Parts: sequence; structure tokens; C-alpha cells
Amino acid sequence: MSSLLIDNIGALVTNDPAQQSGLVGLIEDAAIVFDDGVVAWVGPRTGAPDADDRVDADGRAVIPGFVDSHSHLVFSGDRSAEFAARMAGKPYSAGGINTTVNATRAASTDELRANVARLIAESRRSGTTTNECKSGYGLTVDTEVQSLQLAAEFTDEITFLGAHLVPQEYADRPDDYVDLVCTAMVDACAPAAKWIDVFCERGAFDGDQTRKILTAGVERGLIPRVHANQLGPGPGVQIAVEFGAASADHATFLDDDDIAALASGTTVATLLAATEFATRTPYPDARRLLDAGVTVALASNCNPGSGFTTNLPFCIAVAVRDMFMTPDEALWSATMGGARALRRTDVGHLGVGARADAVLLDAISHVHLAYRPGVPLVGAVWRGGELVAGSVGDRSS
Amino acid sequence: MSSLLIDNIGALVTNDPAQQSGLVGLIEDAAIVFDDGVVAWVGPRTGAPDADDRVDADGRAVIPGFVDSHSHLVFSGDRSAEFAARMAGKPYSAGGINTTVNATRAASTDELRANVARLIAESRRSGTTTNECKSGYGLTVDTEVQSLQLAAEFTDEITFLGAHLVPQEYADRPDDYVDLVCTAMVDACAPAAKWIDVFCERGAFDGDQTRKILTAGVERGLIPRVHANQLGPGPGVQIAVEFGAASADHATFLDDDDIAALASGTTVATLLAATEFATRTPYPDARRLLDAGVTVALASNCNPGSGFTTNLPFCIAVAVRDMFMTPDEALWSATMGGARALRRTDVGHLGVGARADAVLLDAISHVHLAYRPGVPLVGAVWRGGELVAGSVGDRSS
Ligand SMILES: [Zn+2]
Ligand SMILES: [Zn+2]
Repeated sequence: MSSLLIDNIGALVTNDPAQQSGLVGLIEDAAIVFDDGVVAWVGPRTGAPDADDRVDADGRAVIPGFVDSHSHLVFSGDRSAEFAARMAGKPYSAGGINTTVNATRAASTDELRANVARLIAESRRSGTTTNECKSGYGLTVDTEVQSLQLAAEFTDEITFLGAHLVPQEYADRPDDYVDLVCTAMVDACAPAAKWIDVFCERGAFDGDQTRKILTAGVERGLIPRVHANQLGPGPGVQIAVEFGAASADHATFLDDDDIAALASGTTVATLLAATEFATRTPYPDARRLLDAGVTVALASNCNPGSGFTTNLPFCIAVAVRDMFMTPDEALWSATMGGARALRRTDVGHLGVGARADAVLLDAISHVHLAYRPGVPLVGAVWRGGELVAGSVGDRSS
Repeated sequence: MSSLLIDNIGALVTNDPAQQSGLVGLIEDAAIVFDDGVVAWVGPRTGAPDADDRVDADGRAVIPGFVDSHSHLVFSGDRSAEFAARMAGKPYSAGGINTTVNATRAASTDELRANVARLIAESRRSGTTTNECKSGYGLTVDTEVQSLQLAAEFTDEITFLGAHLVPQEYADRPDDYVDLVCTAMVDACAPAAKWIDVFCERGAFDGDQTRKILTAGVERGLIPRVHANQLGPGPGVQIAVEFGAASADHATFLDDDDIAALASGTTVATLLAATEFATRTPYPDARRLLDAGVTVALASNCNPGSGFTTNLPFCIAVAVRDMFMTPDEALWSATMGGARALRRTDVGHLGVGARADAVLLDAISHVHLAYRPGVPLVGAVWRGGELVAGSVGDRSS
């Protein structure tokens, strides 16, 4: 792979605290060199070395590729009618997550693969270069394994979420489903996944069930992460910290003890702004978490029921507007925060040695991601040094 | 110009009440034919006639091009730092609209033209095929004329907004500025514009000044529209109706009399969701207006200070989430509503004879514009029958 110099960058976000200024390690009038798929050099452009190829950023901004640490991409079916009914405050009898489970079980592998491929490509075009992807719409041993294997065609960050909900056929014997998840299902799924996740929530899995399922996963080498405290107060965040989970996701309804637990441990709080946007529910209190010193990630939670977007610039704009994050904090959380939530040190930043995942914006500053909401500002996307979306031409002038 | 058949449309929004169903005149399994820049035929695809060229929509949705009836595109300068400070709740001494006035006055014509061209092209890529554009950052006779002439290079919907604010040099004698607007400035600007607009608001122009300025414009053949009741209660909406204005824009702080006035007249209420998003202020009560029978438009208000987006899909998503419009209402308001606000019958819909302005979405339904917030779903854009943005290839599968 030939080396590449991106020169004449008006504002380069490195997320490297050793760099010039601020939370996002901003360098003005910068350049960066990719070689062999990683960042080989970064700094003020006056000191930039030569490279085989050169792109002129023409004063535009460059940021690290987004790290979307929470998504549900393996599914079939459309729930836009349910969404429209919810927005209109109308009942929708055929709705709900079981619609997606039924459609996913009925879909062919090729249909499911095409849907994941479409959403991954869409996420690339909006600047995402690392995707976590969960199972959880199959809920049988075979369909959960199938979901994980499909996800593995597109990413290494694969999460077994057999404990997404209790499927209809187990409605009157949920503990039998938990037993299945903790035995045959996790046995079959663990070799195909890196993470284990549980939807710990009233109506899904309670604290005891969550502990049992996480333990079964950990025993098989999976690392925990938890859907916690989304719809109401609950034990999810405390359990996440207790298990040393990489992340507690949603984290909307938190009490002082939850905040203290997160602040004292290494578990990242992953906020999913698009979910509250799509369900018209209260946003999590990002300021309270940040001010307590908790590491905050922003992710898409892309799924067909409660927020069907892959677009992290949109999540950033909402996080700034409605979760009172600064534009710097929101960008950091959607890049470095996501990397922390996946325990990755090679992505989410543009320090020397990092994977060459970067986005050239059609804008002079990363602040424009929030300042210009909805405008597609992603000009070009490199992943491992390779151009994977957009083009280097300048649409901005 | 050769004729074009767009065939195999999963869901076609016509906004034609004679069509199959609902507010947006939806036709499923539809086709549409453009000929000589206008819609020549529209209906169920089984009855579609032949045409010179054919595009296969492959089950995707087609909607009318967006009509953005409110924007401020002629300006120079960047205010993202001011935006970031506002979002962080911090003071920003160098901020404010005067920054933009100074930068605009200092800019060359070529710089200003390039900025308008960039934003118009950006709006095309997001599906906008009709743009209104205001002056208002020059505030001298010459710079206002220049702004209108630049706008005229890109659109016919040109609005003289010399009464945007009282410029610094008139700060201690605002009535002298009103006199200038009502005499030399309107004399010079009226031949270059279609509309006259006033920012009627505490801190800008009061009721008497607004009446005087609108009258001066009407006497010179301009049609009124008013920035009304954005930041607080005021006489703007009542004056708009009294003058038979095409539109009262913002319409955020309304009392019962304001609603009744709008409901009794022909003045459209143009809501600017991106402004409330960008300024973190309360959204207008769209439901109250709609339920009272007021015609509602959605527009971008694209401007560098209080909402720098050209993206109407984003405005639709916010209008659904935070202004409680249904996806159908929001889409209608961003197309047909905008046309009403500009008193245009040839755009905003896809009935036979309408200008062939249409958007092929990378989605099976127009509801996805709200269901998939932030995701760029605009696949291809035709204006007057000509492909002006995107491509007809299918990214959705
Ligand atoms: Zn989730
Ligand atoms: Zn305006």
C-alpha cells in the first residue's frame, strides 16, 4: 500500500492529549501521513514528510473515523408505520420488537446479509470506520449463531445478545429461556462473538437473570457489556460496573449511586441520543456523567424499532443540542469514547501508530458537525489507509 | 428534452388530493412521466405510457422536490465558534449578526457568489428544488442590491430584507435607517426582488416600523412576508395577516388572536424547526396551528447565526419529533406548504402540469425521512425534468 499525505488540513482532530489544544487534540494548519494502513506521521504541515500520494484538504477539517460501539444491524423488516403511529400518539397493534424477530427468523441468509451490507456501507458514507454489531433478533440457537456469523463478515466487534428479549414462545416460562441462553445458546455463540450483552430492564431481564447470563458468557471468554437503565431506574449500571463491563449503554435513568459506581470504575457510559430522539423520551444527563468524570461514548444504537439511524454526525448534533455536550465532547465521545467502550486503542484517534481511519469533512471545523445539523459533511473516508467512501474532491467551494 | 418514465415506484407522494390516499396523495406501485420539464402523466404503474428514457425506482419512494421558502444564503463568514460558545452556555463577545454584516460588506462579489452557489448545490443534493433567498446582511443600498442580484443568479424567489436589523452605524438613530429602507433602498431594491420582508421583533423593528416598511414595498410592487413572533409575543403575525402577506415566518410565540388571524386569512405560518434546534429555544406549537386549520410550511431558515442547515429532511425529522407533526404533515409542509408560502402552484406537488421537480429516495417510504434521521436518503433529484443531483443507481440494496 502506497503512503498518503493529507496536506493543508485547516483543523485536524487527533484526540491525542499530547497535541496542541483541547480535549480533541486539535492541530491547525496540519498534515497527516498514512503508511501501511496506520498513521505514520501527524503534526503542523510545515514539518510534514513526503509520501507517495498527496491529497490537498484545502483548509478543510479532518477527524478520526467514528467508532460506533452499539448497533443492531442483523434484522429484516420495516417498522416505519409503527414509528409514524408512535409519533402521532396512536396505538399500533402489530408493532413491537417481535415483528422484527419474526421477520428476521423468516428471512434468508442472503436477505439478512444484504441488509447488514447496506447499513455498513451507509455508515461508512457517514464516516463510521469501526462498527460494533449485536445479535438479538433471532433468539434461537441457530438464528443467533447465524446473526453473529453474518456480523463477522463485516466487523470484529461482535456481540452476543441472546438476552435481548424473551421470545414469544417462552413468554410464560422466561426462566427456561434464560436457561437456554446460559447453556446451549451461549455454548454455540461464544466462539462466534467477542462480547456478551444483556438488556437489563423491567420487561426484559432482571438483575438476577442479568448476572446469570453475564456469568455464563464470561465463563466462555466473552467480555460483558450491558443495556442498562434505559426505560427506568434499575440494577443494570451497578451490575455492569460489578462485572467490570466495558460499557453500560443507554444510562438514562441514573441515581447518585449509579453515577458514583461509573465514576469509580472503568465502565464507559454509552449514550444513544438517536434512541431518545426516535422514541420521544427524555435524554440522558450527559453533563452529570461528564462532570463526575465518567467516560462517555456516543453510539447510534441503529435498530429498526427505536432509532433507525447509522449517522453519528446526527447523534453529535442531538447530543450537543439536547444533552448539553460541547461539540468537542460530542465528537470525542463518538470517536475516542467509542474506542474506549470497545477497549480498542488502535482506533478513535489519529496518533502515530493508530489505524489510518480518518474523515475529511466538507467543512472548516469539526464544530460544523453540530453547527450544520443534517447536512452531509463527510467528504472522504479512509479505513486502514484505504479510501472506503466519498471522494477527495472539494464540494465545499 | 427527452421524456422520462420513472417506473416501479413503491410509494409516490403527489400531494394531489385527487390521488389515492391521505394528505400527501400517496400512490403505491406508481409511475410518473416527465416531458418537456413538467409532469406529463402520473398514476399506478400498470397504466404508465412509454417514454424516451426509463428509470427503475426498484420499489423506492419518490416525493416532490422540497420548496425551501425561507433562507438567508448571501453572506460571508463563519460563526461556528459563536455556536459552540452558545451551546456551552458561555458568553461570546465577538458574536452576533453584526459579525456577518461586517464580513458580508467586506467580501468580494465572487466570494459571496461562491458561497451562495455552494449552499444552493448543497440544498439540491438534499432534495430542494425551489429556494427562496433573502438579502439582509448588506444593509446599505449598494450591498442590498448586490445581494438581491446575486440571489437572482440562482432563484426567482428573491426577498428584499433590508429590514433585517438596524445596522451598527444607525444604532442611535434607528428611524433614520427605517427612512432609508423606505426610500432610497426600496427604490433601488424593488426592481431586483419579488418579496419584501421585515424582521418584526423586539430589538429589530416594531409594529409601526414594520407597517411603514411593508407599505413602501407594496407600493413598489413587492409582496409582503414577515419574520414574526420568533423570540416573543408581538404584532408581527397580526400585521402579516393585515397586509395579506404570503407568510408569517417563525410564528413561535402566538396567542389565541394570532392563531385566529392566521386561520381566517390566507397567510401561511412558516415554521423553522432548525432555528429552535440551533438556538435551543422552544419549538413553535405546530399542532395548535394545524388543528386550527392554518396552512403550515416548513423551511430551513438557513443562515450562519441561528441555524446553518439547508437540509429539509433534517427539519422534517425535528418537526416530527419536537413539533408533533406527523411524517405526512411534515413532508407536505416542506413541499406543498413551501409552495403555498411562495404562492406557487407549479411546484410542491407532482400533479400533471407541475414542474418536474422530484426526489428519488433511497428508502421504501417518505416516512423514512423522519424514521431514519440524519441518514442522507436523497438518491436522485430532478428539477424541471433534469437530473440536478445524485444518481439513479440503487444504494439501498
Ligand atoms: Zn441497543
Ligand atoms: Zn430568517
